[in-house]
Amino acid sequence: MAVTVTLSGAVSGTEELRRNNLRALLRAVHTGGPMTRAQLTRLLGLNRSTIGGLTTTLIDLGLVAEQTAAQSAAAGAAVGGTRSARPSHLVVPRPENAVIAIDLGVDRVQVALVGLGGIVLDRRVREHERGEHDVHRVVERVATMAGELIAAAGHGCRILGVAASVPGAIRSEDGMVQFAPNLGWHGEPFTQLLSERLGRPVRTGNDANLGVMAEHLRGAAVGRRHVIYLGVSVGIGGGFLVDGHLLSGASGYAGEVGHLHVDAAGPECSCGDQGCWELKVGENRLLTLAGRAAGSGPDGVDEVIAAAIAGEAVAQDALTEIASWTGVGLRSLINLFNPEMIVVGGTLAQVWPSIGDQVEEILSRRALLPPRADVAVLPARLGRDSSLIGAAELAFEAILEDPQSAVHCIAAS
Amino acid sequence: MAVTVTLSGAVSGTEELRRNNLRALLRAVHTGGPMTRAQLTRLLGLNRSTIGGLTTTLIDLGLVAEQTAAQSAAAGAAVGGTRSARPSHLVVPRPENAVIAIDLGVDRVQVALVGLGGIVLDRRVREHERGEHDVHRVVERVATMAGELIAAAGHGCRILGVAASVPGAIRSEDGMVQFAPNLGWHGEPFTQLLSERLGRPVRTGNDANLGVMAEHLRGAAVGRRHVIYLGVSVGIGGGFLVDGHLLSGASGYAGEVGHLHVDAAGPECSCGDQGCWELKVGENRLLTLAGRAAGSGPDGVDEVIAAAIAGEAVAQDALTEIASWTGVGLRSLINLFNPEMIVVGGTLAQVWPSIGDQVEEILSRRALLPPRADVAVLPARLGRDSSLIGAAELAFEAILEDPQSAVHCIAAS
Repeated sequence: MAVTVTLSGAVSGTEELRRNNLRALLRAVHTGGPMTRAQLTRLLGLNRSTIGGLTTTLIDLGLVAEQTAAQSAAAGAAVGGTRSARPSHLVVPRPENAVIAIDLGVDRVQVALVGLGGIVLDRRVREHERGEHDVHRVVERVATMAGELIAAAGHGCRILGVAASVPGAIRSEDGMVQFAPNLGWHGEPFTQLLSERLGRPVRTGNDANLGVMAEHLRGAAVGRRHVIYLGVSVGIGGGFLVDGHLLSGASGYAGEVGHLHVDAAGPECSCGDQGCWELKVGENRLLTLAGRAAGSGPDGVDEVIAAAIAGEAVAQDALTEIASWTGVGLRSLINLFNPEMIVVGGTLAQVWPSIGDQVEEILSRRALLPPRADVAVLPARLGRDSSLIGAAELAFEAILEDPQSAVHCIAAS
Repeated sequence: MAVTVTLSGAVSGTEELRRNNLRALLRAVHTGGPMTRAQLTRLLGLNRSTIGGLTTTLIDLGLVAEQTAAQSAAAGAAVGGTRSARPSHLVVPRPENAVIAIDLGVDRVQVALVGLGGIVLDRRVREHERGEHDVHRVVERVATMAGELIAAAGHGCRILGVAASVPGAIRSEDGMVQFAPNLGWHGEPFTQLLSERLGRPVRTGNDANLGVMAEHLRGAAVGRRHVIYLGVSVGIGGGFLVDGHLLSGASGYAGEVGHLHVDAAGPECSCGDQGCWELKVGENRLLTLAGRAAGSGPDGVDEVIAAAIAGEAVAQDALTEIASWTGVGLRSLINLFNPEMIVVGGTLAQVWPSIGDQVEEILSRRALLPPRADVAVLPARLGRDSSLIGAAELAFEAILEDPQSAVHCIAAS
């Protein structure tokens, strides 16, 4: 579609308005899912003909399709009941517009193909070789996994972007990993190396910041403005939404909640201090307390949970100990931030059905009453995928900001 | 610069623009001190005749005066050297436009008359009777002190507002003190009672939030956007500036940094938990560690400092212990918030010359390196007056928002 722009401000104003509307429509169906034109008209406050024009543009760009509700239902799951006599058209994001999302963990790395609309189309998960975190080997492994996914996706799919979640502090301008203590990384050019290896731009974000954004966009914290997300695995990452904005601090290092000092008599931490929170509630702490091998990951945690349910005392005691220290840390965060919601992810989401009641009881007894009354603590709705989905959202950001740029994206081969 | 468009919208737009400019000029001299018209022209990006018109309006409202630099110097301190042959006119805030600022502490209450420009004109300080915090008695005492100040100020002075700093969580819509553990207050209508007693509107803010705003406006943190202010006395109040905005949380209760859990083996706290930070570094902790009576306040602290300098081991050890726990808490805050600056106020500002180096050394050893490298820790430039000055700023807010409203203010009698 040709846009005739002459000189004046008014025309470029109109063009800017149109771009904003295009963005808003694409974001609406990407985040909110398929909608009828009538729903979009109401949601965006635009008239029907404007919505029609924008939809046509997005169809031409290959970003959305229009389906009748009947088609859509048939394409989805089996749907019973009567069909509308006059089928309404649904604007549906086309998931063959996909991104590569990488979740780089301490024990394992996950790479997924995520379609527009936020659907995980395919994924690969591998453990790091012998806990090896050499940045070149990690980059090679991630690139291989990404290549496999792209090859499997076939010709119809076009890759709109690549982004990674890393458990560390990321310099925003170039994605340099400034420090990631649990990977042993200090100033690693992971983003640049991966970008060179893939021959595509790569964006990198902190795992917990991506986690809180994902839960805010399509998880437990939709509509909330004061949110803490805790991604617990080997360490604890904290993502803080303060009045709707990500807490980043002076240089983007904010949120290092794993190194909250909770126990003056606690063990020494790799960070140089002692008694850090993550040493008291991290995944490997649970595993070793329960007499299991550190490093056995989510499967090991599932085994501890099952053992506790089956009545094994050592597993029950381990979970009680984790609950107790979880309460200690959450209490400080509630007193400090007065959040509406705390979303617990990773290991903590996994064990939440076992320890949630205990933690809630500790908070009611030990946090200050008024902020305690404000807060709901919930497991991540995206489960262990919060950071992965957050990385996908980061990768989609460019196309959501400028849907027209899709003309430059070519299908994968 | 006239804007000619049609009817109402455009005219009110011009009027709105004028009000904004009036506000900007008054704020500039209130916060920045006396300035020439030329300086104001540059600072506000307005032309000379606009600045002239605005200045005349503010003179008519009695809010500013114009003086030659010579008059101003003579009115100030003795100034030597040559005088400019062509004296430039200074726009000077008139401090006889004053507010009543109240700093309600746990041990004592302070009431001050603060003039436009932020100058403390007069003040009264009294200890609470026998540690008595009954809200009616506190209100009566504050009102008496305010009355004394107004009477002493005489006829030339007009009172533009009243505001109080309280060490607790304040409900923003009506100033209800939701909880102030160290005063034993839960849901006390202090603001409403004081307003009724004085026959004037009263605004109330949290002491540390007012402290961080005051240090940001005219103290150690001017120009900084990521700032933590710690007001230490019997408890610790925390005021957090996150990217230039006050951290308030879901209901305005954020910042309760005194109840950060730092020591699992620590003593029980009135908040219901144990091992809270304020029990490890509060004023009375220092005094009792040093073998002095709790409650002896700043004078007692001065005595401990002097004794340590004179070589008294128990006083030195007490300061070392305070330094150590100060480091523990600051470290968690640095890791969490990645601030540019931490401003320590109250007792901590008082002892900072004695313990600052020790604390800095602990931070360098135990905080995460990248956020540690970003942060400067400084004592409050406003000393023990940060919250008091913050309360004055809160009281000035209405006139700074609407300078025209000064016509409704009558001189005190």
